[in-house]
Amino acid sequence: MSAKETIWGEHTETIEKRLKAFHPDLQKYIDGFAYGEVYERPGLPLQVKELLAIVMLVSLGNPQELKTHFRGVINAGGSMQDIEEALLFAIPYLGFPRVIGAFEVLRSMQK
Amino acid sequence: MSAKETIWGEHTETIEKRLKAFHPDLQKYIDGFAYGEVYERPGLPLQVKELLAIVMLVSLGNPQELKTHFRGVINAGGSMQDIEEALLFAIPYLGFPRVIGAFEVLRSMQK
Amino acid sequence: MSAKETIWGEHTETIEKRLKAFHPDLQKYIDGFAYGEVYERPGLPLQVKELLAIVMLVSLGNPQELKTHFRGVINAGGSMQDIEEALLFAIPYLGFPRVIGAFEVLRSMQK
Amino acid sequence: MSAKETIWGEHTETIEKRLKAFHPDLQKYIDGFAYGEVYERPGLPLQVKELLAIVMLVSLGNPQELKTHFRGVINAGGSMQDIEEALLFAIPYLGFPRVIGAFEVLRSMQK
Amino acid sequence: MSAKETIWGEHTETIEKRLKAFHPDLQKYIDGFAYGEVYERPGLPLQVKELLAIVMLVSLGNPQELKTHFRGVINAGGSMQDIEEALLFAIPYLGFPRVIGAFEVLRSMQK
Amino acid sequence: MSAKETIWGEHTETIEKRLKAFHPDLQKYIDGFAYGEVYERPGLPLQVKELLAIVMLVSLGNPQELKTHFRGVINAGGSMQDIEEALLFAIPYLGFPRVIGAFEVLRSMQK
Repeated sequence: MSAKETIWGEHTETIEKRLKAFHPDLQKYIDGFAYGEVYERPGLPLQVKELLAIVMLVSLGNPQELKTHFRGVINAGGSMQDIEEALLFAIPYLGFPRVIGAFEVLRSMQK
Repeated sequence: MSAKETIWGEHTETIEKRLKAFHPDLQKYIDGFAYGEVYERPGLPLQVKELLAIVMLVSLGNPQELKTHFRGVINAGGSMQDIEEALLFAIPYLGFPRVIGAFEVLRSMQK
Repeated sequence: MSAKETIWGEHTETIEKRLKAFHPDLQKYIDGFAYGEVYERPGLPLQVKELLAIVMLVSLGNPQELKTHFRGVINAGGSMQDIEEALLFAIPYLGFPRVIGAFEVLRSMQK
Repeated sequence: MSAKETIWGEHTETIEKRLKAFHPDLQKYIDGFAYGEVYERPGLPLQVKELLAIVMLVSLGNPQELKTHFRGVINAGGSMQDIEEALLFAIPYLGFPRVIGAFEVLRSMQK
Repeated sequence: MSAKETIWGEHTETIEKRLKAFHPDLQKYIDGFAYGEVYERPGLPLQVKELLAIVMLVSLGNPQELKTHFRGVINAGGSMQDIEEALLFAIPYLGFPRVIGAFEVLRSMQK
Repeated sequence: MSAKETIWGEHTETIEKRLKAFHPDLQKYIDGFAYGEVYERPGLPLQVKELLAIVMLVSLGNPQELKTHFRGVINAGGSMQDIEEALLFAIPYLGFPRVIGAFEVLRSMQK
């Protein structure tokens, strides 16, 4: 299974349709470059890659993609605790407000 | 051995002296909160924490601390390849300029 | 016609009222400095200025002003394709999440 | 009265409950480090600290915490005019879009 | 004395020449808008304004302007301790790396 | 001639060698995705693309790549005045410090 299919899981079709509606070439670049090239690199376990994705998204101000990659950690075999630990670890680097915002997104998904 | 001693390794004394000269309480907070509390949390392996640290520092524009945490990955049992993979993985999230800047710092350490 | 009137078009009154309600001097500075001084500089076509505005707003995390300047590109004689191309061009510089967020704003305006 | 109690005022219980639900250790770190250590430092008046907090939150893209610290300025003895002046002062440093976004949050609290 | 003259002090001529060499209109906008309009607003003491300037510059990644405004705090009647307190206060909001970088700039000025 | 060859001009070999030394796949991704795919899109003139690149690099804090794209504007048929106008136009969006830093880089190249 590709990294993309693992991360997106049951949401694959929905996400792909959404990206294509944004712009067919946006979807093409995400598919071909981001997932097809960069995510498929061997070296780091997919679970670690998804934790890296999460803290980078937190540093970018918690855009909506955060939800996809919270799910991605779980889909790649990680745990809710891994996510929480990555977020708490971000505090000394990014400060509290960014991390509080990320927890807000995380908890909003659990309702 | 504490997370701090592992990451800072032979540079521990130099780094601590530098931070204390910046401000004694800055050193105290880094020692007590960042390393003493947050880094000592169980859950994620120190090696993964250091990779998270790296991509967050890249997202912050590659400040000097990047050097400490490049060394930190190695000191925590990771490899040069782990560092390179984390940096390449950051491209789709943070764009090329941030990552080019990080490689510049990395390679400058190897001369 | 002033740059401001071209960009804001039929929304001029609404935007001005909103800014004045935020703070009269905020509106005054936007009117006098941002539009009156900087936007009125000769040199770059207004259409190009609006594309520059868009990618800077994307880099700032897609604040609401993005909508005003998507419209601004069109009102200054540019096309929907110009907007899309500027957004896709931003990918290598700012990464995918920022650009996905911008397309989300763009498509939400077309519903 | 602690800095935290002054700033959070009548919202203390709600905020603490919210943070604890996000993660007990997040609440612990905010309580122990952010408020217990850093905010309690003598030197700068609490009112000035809250104005510093506000412009940093504006620079981070106006996260929800902004509301807490708008209230914090008032609770620490400052005025609505102090808040407005801090926001207007941020324009030359952070640009207009960040400041417009902050006024949007401020005025949404007054409805 | 104008806010600009107070902050820039004995460096006024040097800074103005440097800005004019960058672009005459850059100097004109800084003189007319940033200092002439925004800094001259009544309401907040100049000393507080300079502390706000400092934490915003720290959040922007510690550009060279930080030096000017470290001096500005002192020139406006503040103390070295005020500067240090503002920097330490920024930790919970912006994280440690930004603040370490700022202390680096501060201490480099004292040699 | 490709967009890459036009922008990099006589520095093509040097830049490629530098990127390859950073990481062969970094160079491959820049060549294949950033320049091969995104830059080669029809729609916007290369000159406009380079001005977009410049303001995005300014928003990222003026990394070294700025030099390459200052030259890129000229190599793509633009003028020094176009560069200056793009930088001045960025003031209301990104604030003065970012723009002052960019002029510093620009003028350092002319010595």
